[in-house]
Amino acid sequence: MIIVMKHNATQAEVATVIAQVETVGLQARPIIGEERTVVAVVGDERPVETEHFELLDGVERVLRILHPFKLASRDFYADDSQVKINGVSVGGNRVVVMAGPCSVESREQLMETAAAVKEAGAHILRGGAFKPRTSPYAFQGLGLKGLELLREARDAYRLPIITEVVSPQDVTLVAQYTDILQIGARNMQNYALLHAIGETNKPILLKRGMMSTIEELLMAAEYILSHGNSRVMLCERGIRTFETATRNTFDINAIPVLKSLTHLPVIADPSHGTGKWELVTPVARAAIAAGADGVIVEVHPNPARAMSDGAQSLKPEKFAALVSEIRRIAEAMGRSV
Amino acid sequence: MIIVMKHNATQAEVATVIAQVETVGLQARPIIGEERTVVAVVGDERPVETEHFELLDGVERVLRILHPFKLASRDFYADDSQVKINGVSVGGNRVVVMAGPCSVESREQLMETAAAVKEAGAHILRGGAFKPRTSPYAFQGLGLKGLELLREARDAYRLPIITEVVSPQDVTLVAQYTDILQIGARNMQNYALLHAIGETNKPILLKRGMMSTIEELLMAAEYILSHGNSRVMLCERGIRTFETATRNTFDINAIPVLKSLTHLPVIADPSHGTGKWELVTPVARAAIAAGADGVIVEVHPNPARAMSDGAQSLKPEKFAALVSEIRRIAEAMGRSV
Amino acid sequence: MIIVMKHNATQAEVATVIAQVETVGLQARPIIGEERTVVAVVGDERPVETEHFELLDGVERVLRILHPFKLASRDFYADDSQVKINGVSVGGNRVVVMAGPCSVESREQLMETAAAVKEAGAHILRGGAFKPRTSPYAFQGLGLKGLELLREARDAYRLPIITEVVSPQDVTLVAQYTDILQIGARNMQNYALLHAIGETNKPILLKRGMMSTIEELLMAAEYILSHGNSRVMLCERGIRTFETATRNTFDINAIPVLKSLTHLPVIADPSHGTGKWELVTPVARAAIAAGADGVIVEVHPNPARAMSDGAQSLKPEKFAALVSEIRRIAEAMGRSV
Amino acid sequence: MIIVMKHNATQAEVATVIAQVETVGLQARPIIGEERTVVAVVGDERPVETEHFELLDGVERVLRILHPFKLASRDFYADDSQVKINGVSVGGNRVVVMAGPCSVESREQLMETAAAVKEAGAHILRGGAFKPRTSPYAFQGLGLKGLELLREARDAYRLPIITEVVSPQDVTLVAQYTDILQIGARNMQNYALLHAIGETNKPILLKRGMMSTIEELLMAAEYILSHGNSRVMLCERGIRTFETATRNTFDINAIPVLKSLTHLPVIADPSHGTGKWELVTPVARAAIAAGADGVIVEVHPNPARAMSDGAQSLKPEKFAALVSEIRRIAEAMGRSV
Repeated sequence: MIIVMKHNATQAEVATVIAQVETVGLQARPIIGEERTVVAVVGDERPVETEHFELLDGVERVLRILHPFKLASRDFYADDSQVKINGVSVGGNRVVVMAGPCSVESREQLMETAAAVKEAGAHILRGGAFKPRTSPYAFQGLGLKGLELLREARDAYRLPIITEVVSPQDVTLVAQYTDILQIGARNMQNYALLHAIGETNKPILLKRGMMSTIEELLMAAEYILSHGNSRVMLCERGIRTFETATRNTFDINAIPVLKSLTHLPVIADPSHGTGKWELVTPVARAAIAAGADGVIVEVHPNPARAMSDGAQSLKPEKFAALVSEIRRIAEAMGRSV
Repeated sequence: MIIVMKHNATQAEVATVIAQVETVGLQARPIIGEERTVVAVVGDERPVETEHFELLDGVERVLRILHPFKLASRDFYADDSQVKINGVSVGGNRVVVMAGPCSVESREQLMETAAAVKEAGAHILRGGAFKPRTSPYAFQGLGLKGLELLREARDAYRLPIITEVVSPQDVTLVAQYTDILQIGARNMQNYALLHAIGETNKPILLKRGMMSTIEELLMAAEYILSHGNSRVMLCERGIRTFETATRNTFDINAIPVLKSLTHLPVIADPSHGTGKWELVTPVARAAIAAGADGVIVEVHPNPARAMSDGAQSLKPEKFAALVSEIRRIAEAMGRSV
Repeated sequence: MIIVMKHNATQAEVATVIAQVETVGLQARPIIGEERTVVAVVGDERPVETEHFELLDGVERVLRILHPFKLASRDFYADDSQVKINGVSVGGNRVVVMAGPCSVESREQLMETAAAVKEAGAHILRGGAFKPRTSPYAFQGLGLKGLELLREARDAYRLPIITEVVSPQDVTLVAQYTDILQIGARNMQNYALLHAIGETNKPILLKRGMMSTIEELLMAAEYILSHGNSRVMLCERGIRTFETATRNTFDINAIPVLKSLTHLPVIADPSHGTGKWELVTPVARAAIAAGADGVIVEVHPNPARAMSDGAQSLKPEKFAALVSEIRRIAEAMGRSV
Repeated sequence: MIIVMKHNATQAEVATVIAQVETVGLQARPIIGEERTVVAVVGDERPVETEHFELLDGVERVLRILHPFKLASRDFYADDSQVKINGVSVGGNRVVVMAGPCSVESREQLMETAAAVKEAGAHILRGGAFKPRTSPYAFQGLGLKGLELLREARDAYRLPIITEVVSPQDVTLVAQYTDILQIGARNMQNYALLHAIGETNKPILLKRGMMSTIEELLMAAEYILSHGNSRVMLCERGIRTFETATRNTFDINAIPVLKSLTHLPVIADPSHGTGKWELVTPVARAAIAAGADGVIVEVHPNPARAMSDGAQSLKPEKFAALVSEIRRIAEAMGRSV
């Protein structure tokens, strides 16, 4: 932590700052510059609020030196973590493909989609049973019935499944059905929920909030890790910007930034990251080229009849083309699909 | 709903669109323009997904005509709603002041603050017991003990209280202690939580998400209203932008926009809206001048020792000055404090 | 400047950093922490690129301590600067009102507007002759003819005038006609233009770019000041955010932030800051309540026929109401209009 | 254009709207819905301001149907445009690589870089002579001397060159030296400059403003095209968002969006798009995988000594690796480098 004093701070004010640093168990190293005095703080700054110094007289601002996350950091674990799910390994050389409908709508729709994505080469089946929707008047998901259908599809097509959990009290139930628990973008900072899933040992796919920085995503992962669950995968799914031509702006920079800051696997969601089916395949290719460990893609046999996210869902034949295109990119990167 | 066809759409494609409109129970009115055909849709478009048309061949895009919210709209209720809390009325001529510490930290800290804000003219006491914090290593609030202290302060100073609830399973408990349930910015789209509070009849202060649009705030209110609870107050608390000089950008435009779109009362939170105590009073004045029905402000007897949000907390004497300044602005607006 | 070393940086790497600091004429103060070594740099860091250190082996990042602007800073000049324009003083106790049409369209339109704004109490007449427009197919302004009409209105109504200049080669010409040169938001970082106006001694109204930070606004002012022209006024006119309910988001926080960082006067433009005439008056009131030194407002006798910016233009009678409303706010602030 | 009436609009108000539509030479088609009447407008809406209707009594809002750009649109020209520069064709099957230093600093620096990028396989040499810099105290470029050095390098290494022009009065001069005129992000809406280059027949690289939408980029291109110069290339170089981990957020979605909306070639600038040299290669790969027609990359023999943009400059050996990596991606896409 670096405490920058105002240009007219007095010696007494500097002395008070130094005393306060020592009060919280850290050491102070004042440096007298030409225009400003700064006080460098030595010790573990993470548990200390910057306000303890910022609000003292004569202080202009306080800069943190350390990243606030620890367990998620490459400093903590230098290799790539791999998350294993029933034989599928995420975070290794093989690029992982997760695919399926936004919402589970019916037995027929789910089975038809599961068959198609399996055939096209997907490794994991996605599908929503509990749906967070912007409008209270929109379809809210099939709930338990959806979980049962997912389980049936899982067993029929031997595909591990991933589905979203939206409330702490549902965690135990959903965990009985699914192989991976998904935390949606709107819940990335739902700490009660992060706490609850942190106490399971299920693999987690944690989606970046549309309004969240990369550091905040890693802090949300830190919540899960610090509650004991180390099987965390991160997901870039687009952020909100001023651009209105697309639903979100897929943050391609976040892929290599995350790969350098953390050991956790990084998955790309080009369906939400663009919001338009025509853009899903090019952005999926881009994500793999940038170093993502996998993609999660929405597929629907009849997008125009989908009860949610139809605009960004691929038909099965388009999805098959996507898989073969990202395979070529993965191979150019020395990986496989 | 207006369906814009591509400039080279065929007659057959237009016919298919018209048939699909009729299938969902609405009426189609095609208009043949010089460069484009558009199909105007007559009927209640709210329950219909735009994708049902967007994905048909020959369609370029689909525009909604109606606001997606209904119960929150001024079209639904033209007057100003007032929310009454133990004799305090929010949304009327009197500007309401809510104040107190970010977190309840101790009996002494809370009582001292309650006494000070009461003395300065506050109408409602705020204080956090369950704290959503970005870091798992930061202070998480006193929980139930915090609720009990708030109750004690409430009774000692005869001030209604407001505190945040962060999880659906806590709603019943928190509602037993507090006069107003606060939904924090990070939970604005936590639908399980909105559902749970919508089934109480407690007054709600719903904070705008830091990256939520005004329309999304009104849709979140609609969730609560549609579950039967009409005692909703909205709160502008700053949005996330590219500007880094302040913690958030207080969206002053949102105040008159909300007052024109909805009948619900609008409260301003200049503490989170700026993140710096020096800016709280000028932005509080601005919010009242723009038409806000009240303010909610963080006050702490010793901000440099606060366990959360110290940087944006006012000392009691600064808070007293804030109240007298917004009183002068309110009077210039023909209102009182 | 603070140079943060990586957690595994070697002593040799630290030594190289120290040598490089000394090479550029500054002094290095290494501080060995528990997890990181940091090197504090003593001396004037402003002319030094951070990359000179950032790219050395073992360096994690480099933090600047000083604001990059000097002449615009309150550290440089502690009082409020006042800019005097033909008897009107901007930056003192009196709140200044600038008003007029977005574009000068005709003699009749300009004279009618000038008469109305004078009557309502405006101090300065605005009007555009050279118009930067998003579309090449839109009205581009009357050019020289517009300048002549402005001059005529200026003399007829004894109102100093302000108009925009968009190109360095036009500066001499426009300066012959106008009392204040306006730099539009899209040109805030047009350095050739800033250079050219910096060499005049005309008062300048420098508008903040719609996606420029407060610091960048002050750096643009620094360009003008450093070329010798000290008569600079800043203008907050709204920034671009994700919110689409309004054309821009008026950054109310910027008013008190600027008043604390700089001695230059701060003007608010609620017309561009909102983009909707219904919001102009509430946001004008808010800006004055936040401490702005004046407002600039678009007024048109028949907004529905305006050749630009009609949606945000006030009719003369609405403008008269605005002036009386901000007068009441100014008086509540101990100022006058 | 679709004019949406308020829900309580009167028949007389609708009649006035219809009359106004006809006044501007268009045709009105009113549609009476359940909650709203809308008036569809038939004819070329582009030259008509929406305010002409928006401000009439009873109107809620006005929606445009057509894109505001014409010459830049795929509707206007369905194939891919190719821009030819001394034997290099941009926009065809071959992916084009432009590389060189941010600023021309000296003869040695430029020649060394030119030799290296030529050797690595670059097709075009970039280098800045006139530099727009945020700080007036930073290096502003060598000016004419820089142009002469670029010309020398061009002839020595037989590489076409690209350099930025920042002011309308410099266009003639810079055009005498360079093969491609670059318009920087800060000047994307400098209409005087767009006008001036639109009257040359030099190839243009138009960079997207960091605050500009895709539509605004296309409107800026439209300015150049409508002044007669059709040799325009677009450049995505990152936009400004709330994320602070990178200098800008490279908008990968913009690549396929632009390729679908316009026939003009699209170049990616991963140096500015990320601001960090470690991220340049992964994002360059991603851009090619998303369909970009080329990249422009900053290369410097000694980035730590660069007078500008050192942090995002590649050393020659890293650049050579970048070229071989994007070659593999291009081949996976069925293209070559």
